[in-house]
Amino acid sequence: MLIVDAVQNAQAGHPGMALGMADIGYYLYRHVMRYNPRDPKWFNRDRFVLSAGHGCLLQYVCHHLAGFESVQLEDLKRLCKLGSRTPGHPENTVTDGIEVTTGPLGQGVANAVGLALAEAHLAARFNKPDCDIVDHRTYCIMGDGCAMEGITHEAASLAAHWKLHKLTMIYDDNHNTIDGPISLAFSEDISARFKALGWNTITVDNTHDDMDSFNDALLSAFGDTEKPTFIRVKTLIGRLSRKEGTSKAHHGTFEEDDVKQMRQKVNWDSREPFHVIPMVYREMQIQTDHGEKLEKEWFSKFDYFKTNYPEEAAEFEVLLSGGLPPNWETCLPEWSVTDPVDATRGYSEKCLNQLVKVLPGLIGGSADLASSNKVYLQGSQDFQHSSFYGRNIRYGVREHAMAGISNGIALHRSGLIPFAATFLIFSDYMKNSIRLSALSHAGVIYIMTHDSIGLGEDGPTHQPIEQLAGLRAVPRLLVFRPADGNETAGAYREAITNRDAPSVIALSRQKVAANLEGTSANEVEKGGYIISDNSGKSLPDIILIGTGSELCLCEESAKMLRKEGRRVRVVSLVCWQLFNRQPKEYKEHVLPSSVSKRISVEAGSSMGWSEYVGREGIVMGVEEFGASGAYLDTFKKFGFTEENVTRVAKSLLSQY
Amino acid sequence: MLIVDAVQNAQAGHPGMALGMADIGYYLYRHVMRYNPRDPKWFNRDRFVLSAGHGCLLQYVCHHLAGFESVQLEDLKRLCKLGSRTPGHPENTVTDGIEVTTGPLGQGVANAVGLALAEAHLAARFNKPDCDIVDHRTYCIMGDGCAMEGITHEAASLAAHWKLHKLTMIYDDNHNTIDGPISLAFSEDISARFKALGWNTITVDNTHDDMDSFNDALLSAFGDTEKPTFIRVKTLIGRLSRKEGTSKAHHGTFEEDDVKQMRQKVNWDSREPFHVIPMVYREMQIQTDHGEKLEKEWFSKFDYFKTNYPEEAAEFEVLLSGGLPPNWETCLPEWSVTDPVDATRGYSEKCLNQLVKVLPGLIGGSADLASSNKVYLQGSQDFQHSSFYGRNIRYGVREHAMAGISNGIALHRSGLIPFAATFLIFSDYMKNSIRLSALSHAGVIYIMTHDSIGLGEDGPTHQPIEQLAGLRAVPRLLVFRPADGNETAGAYREAITNRDAPSVIALSRQKVAANLEGTSANEVEKGGYIISDNSGKSLPDIILIGTGSELCLCEESAKMLRKEGRRVRVVSLVCWQLFNRQPKEYKEHVLPSSVSKRISVEAGSSMGWSEYVGREGIVMGVEEFGASGAYLDTFKKFGFTEENVTRVAKSLLSQY
Repeated sequence: MLIVDAVQNAQAGHPGMALGMADIGYYLYRHVMRYNPRDPKWFNRDRFVLSAGHGCLLQYVCHHLAGFESVQLEDLKRLCKLGSRTPGHPENTVTDGIEVTTGPLGQGVANAVGLALAEAHLAARFNKPDCDIVDHRTYCIMGDGCAMEGITHEAASLAAHWKLHKLTMIYDDNHNTIDGPISLAFSEDISARFKALGWNTITVDNTHDDMDSFNDALLSAFGDTEKPTFIRVKTLIGRLSRKEGTSKAHHGTFEEDDVKQMRQKVNWDSREPFHVIPMVYREMQIQTDHGEKLEKEWFSKFDYFKTNYPEEAAEFEVLLSGGLPPNWETCLPEWSVTDPVDATRGYSEKCLNQLVKVLPGLIGGSADLASSNKVYLQGSQDFQHSSFYGRNIRYGVREHAMAGISNGIALHRSGLIPFAATFLIFSDYMKNSIRLSALSHAGVIYIMTHDSIGLGEDGPTHQPIEQLAGLRAVPRLLVFRPADGNETAGAYREAITNRDAPSVIALSRQKVAANLEGTSANEVEKGGYIISDNSGKSLPDIILIGTGSELCLCEESAKMLRKEGRRVRVVSLVCWQLFNRQPKEYKEHVLPSSVSKRISVEAGSSMGWSEYVGREGIVMGVEEFGASGAYLDTFKKFGFTEENVTRVAKSLLSQY
Repeated sequence: MLIVDAVQNAQAGHPGMALGMADIGYYLYRHVMRYNPRDPKWFNRDRFVLSAGHGCLLQYVCHHLAGFESVQLEDLKRLCKLGSRTPGHPENTVTDGIEVTTGPLGQGVANAVGLALAEAHLAARFNKPDCDIVDHRTYCIMGDGCAMEGITHEAASLAAHWKLHKLTMIYDDNHNTIDGPISLAFSEDISARFKALGWNTITVDNTHDDMDSFNDALLSAFGDTEKPTFIRVKTLIGRLSRKEGTSKAHHGTFEEDDVKQMRQKVNWDSREPFHVIPMVYREMQIQTDHGEKLEKEWFSKFDYFKTNYPEEAAEFEVLLSGGLPPNWETCLPEWSVTDPVDATRGYSEKCLNQLVKVLPGLIGGSADLASSNKVYLQGSQDFQHSSFYGRNIRYGVREHAMAGISNGIALHRSGLIPFAATFLIFSDYMKNSIRLSALSHAGVIYIMTHDSIGLGEDGPTHQPIEQLAGLRAVPRLLVFRPADGNETAGAYREAITNRDAPSVIALSRQKVAANLEGTSANEVEKGGYIISDNSGKSLPDIILIGTGSELCLCEESAKMLRKEGRRVRVVSLVCWQLFNRQPKEYKEHVLPSSVSKRISVEAGSSMGWSEYVGREGIVMGVEEFGASGAYLDTFKKFGFTEENVTRVAKSLLSQY
């Protein structure tokens, strides 16, 4: 009835799933999961993910009954109100005790796989025969919508491949989606499908009258030491209401007389809205007291661990405190102008392989492009069932799940620093998960190589144009496009330092022209800075602004212009977001308002560059799709040559 | 050997799959598919999709041998060269005879489902007991990468749900991906998985020595009148080379001595590169002559159809000529300022339901949000197995496949005009397919409702912020954000007129404030235009630029400012891309350079707005994630009120 009362009070929300899954939700929080509401961040708690995030009321009500401080009755009364702790979908940054932010369907399934992966990895690295300090399970509730989404398929395939047996997926099979009965668009034998992927599959036919069967299913899950378990629970959406079993119950309020008959059915008619029988709190407390006890035991165990395995314990503590040991950044390599040039993906490889030596939490992989992205961690093993301690994750060609799983790894909040690599163009496949990294403060590092038309022969299907612009527009996401070795190192430094924000590091396939004299790893934190300038105390005649592989073009063009007596400044705008956060004075210092002749040079969409070059400046970008061809031919076709940059600069300089 | 020669000559490309699938490719083009290279656009041809697009050489070589004008030996010699007709992945806009543009994995599978859907739909509508004018099959080759992608799962689920039995999927099971053996990341029983979805599944164990088994599989496919067929062919990647059977064969050239031993193996050592035995051309010609004969027969059949079913034939001819009957646009409703206001999604519903009456090709649906998106076509049936003639497609919660399938429908090139609807936020789930609509000139209409923080309670996971910016940056994609009824009608007019470019129509969930006096359906084609202005012959003091639901705010604020004696212009920038294409004079007319006080008002990312407001203007946007709350509260929180727009305008007006 709390669910009904909250929806009626808010005149908004999604009661259907919450009512249909109320038995299951209560059972999990009362009898199954190990957690301590008095310390929602206890490391060894079981993780719970509501992938069908619109059913958030189920979780809010369970958290309230279990005694989480973050969900008081007052919070339930403020459902979907601006500023409340009970927004329309669960948000981990708003409500303590919520592990991940869900709502976009299927994302939670991938997050749950990431949480289970994190547990498996840490258990393999730190547990000892006499001391299991990492030992918890992951539960996830998915709905019919999640069942249809591609990301769910990708993540489920990986969970089974890895044999993440401590992951339990509970599928709310309520036969309805928003548009009507699921039969409108779904004819699968979903159990057979999960079985084909390698899951232990169990069906509970009558969930509402038969908790024993559900309990048996959980026992089967606990007993399986190879397969993750898929429990299909058949439920009635909007249970007890007149909309029960129909898609009308999915969202929206109830008629008043429907509420009345529901209250009568459960002998609730004399009670005020938001009434809770004290016994329910007491029942829940049995489980949460048990959780508190388990937490205490865990701390004792950890003391034992510290005494007997001090080295491992020290590393574990570094992880739990965020994963950044002191002075970790000094490991990053430095480059000088005389060093051989490489593609920025090559510099990235060198950075990663230094970082992995000092960051105990660095873990990640590629969507089947490890060799192209150059992200394989030398000296580490693959993360596989037989080697959960491995730190190279083989995602296969599953970009979307890779990103969703990475969010789960980050939000396990155990100091793991996940990276996820593919071609920049395929950021499109995982865009929503990248967005959720930003929204849920998951510090995932997206390593995106082949970052422009400079990738050449593979052609326009693989050449990113608008991807940088689209990613730069995502709030909180840091997008770096480093120009050479030192800027690549600087990008990693910032990406790793920002543990509560995701980063994209866009890297070239092709060799860049030089390690530039004026670039600096340290300056990357400012997002934009002056690379070179021959203006002395005067203002420059013109400013050339570049990023990534095109910064060298700017520098070469500047040299040609300077030979002709021009005062030219070259600016690297390696990370817009960080530059935008600088004090006004600094921004004015780098890009003085009085210098209106400015050219930006970036082999991608011009979207957004006006902000930096102004209405009198020129944006050199790519406004159409790319073309298959050798990289230099492609660059030439789109005007990215020293000669052309110089030509454009001269034409601008000749204007008054 | 043509494959090997082309890769060696280009020093680029992906020979592995092309070699492994050469037998299958040849068999299909020589013995199975009905097509006429002399008329690659013959309506009733079988459709072929290479979802594993990196294997394009397979298709180029087959097309060359079959006599397609577009692939001469000279073209094979120019593989991956700038401007060639043989780019690194197949592009339908570059090479006649290529149906769809593939490369991003899994997309082709969804395209193939769309092509098969188009056939099934047209067959159900036009075939007569005595005359089947629509009767062709769709073949698709997918690889291991496609097998892992979520979009493939979504599309495969729908193909089986719809029982698209004339679709044959050929899975190149070569056990390798780029990073190594597929076992690194894939443990599924893929045949069981497709069976669980409802496919007829067949495995051909030894493809290279046993074309009879492959032929038997095809016969099984032809005989199945319910299920689509999944033929798993086990192949050797990079066959005959020393890299055979390993991931090293996936892409890249061969060592010269490897080429030499391959040539010896096939008794080719005395031949020049790019040699073709004339017999091969003659063999292929048997099939293409057969295709030519079939085409002639089809035209005779169509004559019979015209004679006996003149009405249906007339409609069919409208479709084949592009689907736009004369004066179709006059069906669009008009609104006046006194009409009751609605959300723009409501206006959209009215437009769609007029359009469906006059456009025989309009077909589409929603990813389980038909009622929220308001896209259900009244008076039409659902597209289901029992009613393929239906024009309402139920995609389920499968956005990515929806977009990929829509591309297939559009590129069937039979006058069908597909629309695809979901919330604007979920454009993220289908971003790559939207991009491919633009790249492959597929005029899909994306109807994206709930287009800002104005959706309210569902909160930040559902509130688009950066989506408009990201979509506006996609080349060739038209993004409309209409403000009221007439602009919505105008957006549809443009979207439908532009059959070779996709459109996004972003629509509000919430009611807009008014049907504005100054808006106009006709003006939408210019992308931006003046809504109101009290400046007379003078220039305005300030220009307020808005889109969508915020245009009313601009108009209201303008009224307040005008009362205080200000000259204020309000501009609707309903489609940036169309505005950018206008002559300089027109743009200067709407946004005169000398008026530097400009404010843009749009409840989304500010990315890109600088271009229109200039460095002295102010962009009113949203630079963070939204918030769950009632829509007016949310709008207020982010500053989208008349009062605040007026306040900002006054502060700008007071600056010098």
